[in-house]
Amino acid sequence: MSEIITKVLPGFMELLPEEQIEFDRIKNIIATTYKQYGFTALDTPIIERSKTLLAKAGGETEKQIYCVENGNGAGVGNSDENGKTDLSLRFDLTVPLARYVAEHFNELSFPFRRCHISKVYRGERPQKGRFREFYQCDIDVIGKDKLSIRYDAEIPSIIYQLFKQLNFGKFTIRINNRKILNGLIDSLNIDTDKVEILRIIDKTEKVSRDDLVSQFKDQGLTNESVEKLLNFIDIEGPTSEVISKLKSLGINNALFLEGIEELATVTSMMVEMGVESDYFKIDLSIARGLDYYTGTVYETVLNDYPKIGSVCSGGRFDNLASYYTTEKLPGVGISIGLTRLFYQLREVGLITCTKKTIADIVIVPMDDSNIKTAFHTANCLRADGFNVDVLLEDLSVKKKFTYVRKKEASFTIVIGSEEEATSQLTIQYKTNGELKKESMTIDLISEFIKNHYYEVGN
Amino acid sequence: MSEIITKVLPGFMELLPEEQIEFDRIKNIIATTYKQYGFTALDTPIIERSKTLLAKAGGETEKQIYCVENGNGAGVGNSDENGKTDLSLRFDLTVPLARYVAEHFNELSFPFRRCHISKVYRGERPQKGRFREFYQCDIDVIGKDKLSIRYDAEIPSIIYQLFKQLNFGKFTIRINNRKILNGLIDSLNIDTDKVEILRIIDKTEKVSRDDLVSQFKDQGLTNESVEKLLNFIDIEGPTSEVISKLKSLGINNALFLEGIEELATVTSMMVEMGVESDYFKIDLSIARGLDYYTGTVYETVLNDYPKIGSVCSGGRFDNLASYYTTEKLPGVGISIGLTRLFYQLREVGLITCTKKTIADIVIVPMDDSNIKTAFHTANCLRADGFNVDVLLEDLSVKKKFTYVRKKEASFTIVIGSEEEATSQLTIQYKTNGELKKESMTIDLISEFIKNHYYEVGN
Repeated sequence: MSEIITKVLPGFMELLPEEQIEFDRIKNIIATTYKQYGFTALDTPIIERSKTLLAKAGGETEKQIYCVENGNGAGVGNSDENGKTDLSLRFDLTVPLARYVAEHFNELSFPFRRCHISKVYRGERPQKGRFREFYQCDIDVIGKDKLSIRYDAEIPSIIYQLFKQLNFGKFTIRINNRKILNGLIDSLNIDTDKVEILRIIDKTEKVSRDDLVSQFKDQGLTNESVEKLLNFIDIEGPTSEVISKLKSLGINNALFLEGIEELATVTSMMVEMGVESDYFKIDLSIARGLDYYTGTVYETVLNDYPKIGSVCSGGRFDNLASYYTTEKLPGVGISIGLTRLFYQLREVGLITCTKKTIADIVIVPMDDSNIKTAFHTANCLRADGFNVDVLLEDLSVKKKFTYVRKKEASFTIVIGSEEEATSQLTIQYKTNGELKKESMTIDLISEFIKNHYYEVGN
Repeated sequence: MSEIITKVLPGFMELLPEEQIEFDRIKNIIATTYKQYGFTALDTPIIERSKTLLAKAGGETEKQIYCVENGNGAGVGNSDENGKTDLSLRFDLTVPLARYVAEHFNELSFPFRRCHISKVYRGERPQKGRFREFYQCDIDVIGKDKLSIRYDAEIPSIIYQLFKQLNFGKFTIRINNRKILNGLIDSLNIDTDKVEILRIIDKTEKVSRDDLVSQFKDQGLTNESVEKLLNFIDIEGPTSEVISKLKSLGINNALFLEGIEELATVTSMMVEMGVESDYFKIDLSIARGLDYYTGTVYETVLNDYPKIGSVCSGGRFDNLASYYTTEKLPGVGISIGLTRLFYQLREVGLITCTKKTIADIVIVPMDDSNIKTAFHTANCLRADGFNVDVLLEDLSVKKKFTYVRKKEASFTIVIGSEEEATSQLTIQYKTNGELKKESMTIDLISEFIKNHYYEVGN
């Protein structure tokens, strides 16, 4: 028996009940908000054909992918020339979305709004805060041939509503447009690797001015080009100011100008959609990945916890599924890496797991003769939407109260012979640390709990 | 590009949005009901150590298991002497529960009530209605050393409430106790394989009386033993009648008598817990698996669809985690195979997928100047819990209405210059097939939709 390991695998998150309750509470806020914006949940298989998953990917992704094979080999278990089996676990939710939309193209109506909250798998080297199985919480709006720029504004309006709900403190949605960056680099008329320039710009915040200059020069940029880039990077301030400064740079590149126009439209429309102006800002250094996004890009940072990095990122892409279909499918979306975020927020003490049970009410019948009353009471409360745990174990009175204490449910109702005789049940609950009791007939209990639900710290 | 297959793998279920909405509706009823009984959701990794998963299993399970291996091989990818890799996908939720309780024993409070609704993997040969990835919806109550028989009654009271909610028509919870079967066979004083006799009894419904007799005789049973078994199998009727008939069989086996006592207790307590007596019956032929359950066992059949078989099964077990811990952990629980059930219920036409969008309301701003009003309206409705899709795509008026028609949301609000000028929005909705319109100011819309929400077929 000692041979069997019961510890969870390294790189996998496994939560205790009180932690799971908090994790699920957060996941539920995300799911509910996505739903309130009309995104339909999808639920594609975790296992996909390796060739399909890896159609675009390469490098790190391919190394980190989990291959799958089953014992009886029916239809699976063949490996290709590189020794990969023909089935794998998905490493994100975007590739399955692309496959899904390509496959069901004729059955979907566009713009197609889908939400997907589920686990993905990456065989990363296990380290603190990195997970091999983790939740992604994605939404995307996919257009057929075209998709209005207005959706680029709607997405940050959803981030805004969501993070207000999540209540992780003040946050800032950083917004940029890849066309501005790409146009700017195009305008430099250089032969050097544009991706490398983008990468340097993306890391601006982390290096000194001197290092920045020498990094640009290492790429063979002229003094004039370096100055142009530094002037660009230095631009900051309120939205309208950034926009006019960008225009006054005098860069006459069509892509660059288109990017400014889009950024101006998106930021002004965000305000119309209800986003308060101190919850977002233009950040010209944001690139978000190097080959996927083509227009608006977003990052979201918690103002008090900048070290956590972006907690919600995404952007606009020109074509979702070019590896699977000739249909042109532009889209815009965001993703939250919930498993990592939960881990980080616990580390900084921003979330605590105080709820020990999902039950709002624990009912304790003293013996068999009280079970009927206990269940009648419990079922009335359940019909009104409450979660009720009836303690049915044969325990001493002392142990019954130990169970109740450990559970820390908001309300407790003990039912014994006196309660049966008088038809009066006593509800126990705590307000501001003080234990209170109130007796009443069954028909009044639900209303009483409704009225006191938030008073007890729910 | 034609090389890349986008079709879902055989044996995997992938749903269209309208199907997924219905699937999720059902899954949500199950999750909510479990929660209302105080079961905390767990969410263990899909990947486990193969040795841990297979500690008990063997035969079919081992053949069907999916092995997992990752590209960079960090910590995984080693295979044992049989060529199995050291990681696999879980094939049920019970083995992970056993591992979890063994691992976190000291951090849990007992009785431990856990719910788990998630996917499991079995590499079965793909065939109609059989899935390689499927949802199980499990609840279990786990005791420490002991667990009151009252929980055996609570479980069918949950089945009763749940299937009432699910609204799949009349159903019957069939209940039995393995001690009765085991005691009966013990009392025959035979050398033959008891498991074989159990298997024959379990299949009683499917064979003729003559076949039954000859099957028993093939096991080397005497005429007297066969008669005893037939008398037993023939027992049916209302609960109290079955109990007294069982008692009057005159079988003096302690286990048999204990089983009758338990069955009598459980069935009478179920009634006290609110289960209507015509929703359950004793069925002495039910065994439910041959080596796992040790006491009360359940099956649930939909009265109008007997061919579907049991839609919710489970029972009492003596010891959950004997392969992982020396702690004795008796428990009782049930499982619903939701993916298969959903497939079967669609096949018989019991569920239809009519909701095309998760949005209750589609708002259509005619142009940019209406976006502010559209989002103000949408955000008010969302704050009141409604799901709202704002159509932002640049489309002709005709195409905008095509989008609205396809979506079939319950309510539609079009916002144009007239609405802006008069501050009166018009809500369109259908009652009994008739299209209705009503105009009002924004502040009255939410209340109006609340009042008409069920009228439109929600």
